[in-house]
Amino acid sequence: MNQETPLAIVFDPIRSDLQRVEDLLRDAVGSTAEPLRGMLQHVLTGGKRLRAAVVVLSGQSLGGAGQTLAQLAAAVEILHAATLVHDDVVDESATRRGRDTLHFRWSTQAAVLAGDYLLAQSVRMVTELERGDILAVLARTLTAICEGEIVQALLGDGSRPGRTSYFKQIEAKTAALFRSAAEMAAMLAAGTDAQINALRRYGLRLGLAYQIVDDVLDIGGRPAELGKPVGMDLRQGLWTLPVLLHLQQAGPSDPVCAYVAGERTDDMLVQAIDCLFSSGALDAARAEAARQARLAQRAVRALPDTAARDGLLALAECVLTRRA
Amino acid sequence: MNQETPLAIVFDPIRSDLQRVEDLLRDAVGSTAEPLRGMLQHVLTGGKRLRAAVVVLSGQSLGGAGQTLAQLAAAVEILHAATLVHDDVVDESATRRGRDTLHFRWSTQAAVLAGDYLLAQSVRMVTELERGDILAVLARTLTAICEGEIVQALLGDGSRPGRTSYFKQIEAKTAALFRSAAEMAAMLAAGTDAQINALRRYGLRLGLAYQIVDDVLDIGGRPAELGKPVGMDLRQGLWTLPVLLHLQQAGPSDPVCAYVAGERTDDMLVQAIDCLFSSGALDAARAEAARQARLAQRAVRALPDTAARDGLLALAECVLTRRA
Repeated sequence: MNQETPLAIVFDPIRSDLQRVEDLLRDAVGSTAEPLRGMLQHVLTGGKRLRAAVVVLSGQSLGGAGQTLAQLAAAVEILHAATLVHDDVVDESATRRGRDTLHFRWSTQAAVLAGDYLLAQSVRMVTELERGDILAVLARTLTAICEGEIVQALLGDGSRPGRTSYFKQIEAKTAALFRSAAEMAAMLAAGTDAQINALRRYGLRLGLAYQIVDDVLDIGGRPAELGKPVGMDLRQGLWTLPVLLHLQQAGPSDPVCAYVAGERTDDMLVQAIDCLFSSGALDAARAEAARQARLAQRAVRALPDTAARDGLLALAECVLTRRA
Repeated sequence: MNQETPLAIVFDPIRSDLQRVEDLLRDAVGSTAEPLRGMLQHVLTGGKRLRAAVVVLSGQSLGGAGQTLAQLAAAVEILHAATLVHDDVVDESATRRGRDTLHFRWSTQAAVLAGDYLLAQSVRMVTELERGDILAVLARTLTAICEGEIVQALLGDGSRPGRTSYFKQIEAKTAALFRSAAEMAAMLAAGTDAQINALRRYGLRLGLAYQIVDDVLDIGGRPAELGKPVGMDLRQGLWTLPVLLHLQQAGPSDPVCAYVAGERTDDMLVQAIDCLFSSGALDAARAEAARQARLAQRAVRALPDTAARDGLLALAECVLTRRA
């Protein structure tokens, strides 16, 4: 595996901008009463702030700056938090980022309401920017995320998706918000149509790379770094790219095939994971993530040569080489 | 009890406008795939469309008309549906309007996602109006509704609220959306500040009257007309106005007091309800609803003398004298 590119390379130059985002997130929490306050603090603490960084760097790459960019970044992080809270209810997950989920520590009721509150706050913060065109992107993104979730959670008949529908799923689940984060920032920074499109493509490809790396880490990551055991997606029957690539070439007696199709014991899981390593499926998925990251980088090469553009290029490396 | 004022008096003159709203709701459902389609159809069918009528009449009372007003009305009905779907998850209700709730017929997961989808659609439809000021009202309303729900569902320590906090609760739960429906319609119809304020007050008072009548019907309604047994709120420990008014004058051995404080048997419920009738608490709550309805009517008396204003006045009568 490649050397991990430390996120500090990306984050250090925009430290003060990200601090503004943190301040806005703290304000959003601080203005509420308990128990909501505690719940919001719980979910808004400890994220990597990748989406905020995408907003800040995308905006700055077109000469944008200041408080409105930070506000958009905070709104995107809050929307992200809202989707995580409701996702955890839908998936009945007990932990997230190594900590209790909201619905597990409080209740399903609390999680539904806190998620709604976060959605409302996200919309409110973008409304304050007084840019109806940006809000329209936010509303479309939220719709796309919901539709994607519904397809995955409710329509999934367990059958194996093809390449196209796999990409459609991860676009809705993960890449749509990255895409819109970059697009909205470019709009806020008054970019040209070509620049907005370039950053939109950047965000989409970055998001796809991010999700594929997530898929790879589920098999090839280290539990100590991940803060969770490997094989969680596999256990839950989620289709990840290494598994899909492996099954294209596997026979019915293959351990991965058997695990996916049949009773799932821990022994079988160990065998299946081993098999994904040795078949080259894991490497093939890594190669696909790298391809997406390169497409992200290519999308922004024509932008003005600024520190922010360099940050976007480096962020694609970070996403690709991350270990957690 | 007063003679029921038939809703047809209000609805007949705006039948074609409400048909537009229905068409928009059908379009919103029709553009989705199963199982979402079925879920949305389930929740968007069978409402009374009171909020849509408030939007249409408020807008028309200031000379507004046409497709944008219908679109706002549809967005308000969709937001209302979203809050109902998530409320039912939070309250774990199995029925609503005499039909299965979404989470009961499908699943909690489905209900969370369908509610989110409806929220996103509501925001999207208002965004399309390209009126940031109206969208800001929507975002604030959504925040207020969530905060109110959180207070009721999570903070409620079971202690009896005073008059002020009861009114605060029903404002957030019910009246805020009526208030904003009228306010947003007035803004869309380019009303003056005084007109917008008048309609905002109308919506608020109408919403308070509506909720108090709801409280009254829980005790004094007829099951056959309501489509549910009486005493459901009381059974669930929800504080309603008749109960609050009764307890102001009741001793600790009073049947209502005993029911609220102790073990709740069906026999005790029957006694408690009887007691609320005979103590005059039910009539006192009805009088309060009437007072709110009069305040609603007074708020719009200074508006131009139009059929739409007459509709708003009549709607306040309907809300007051409704039996279901």
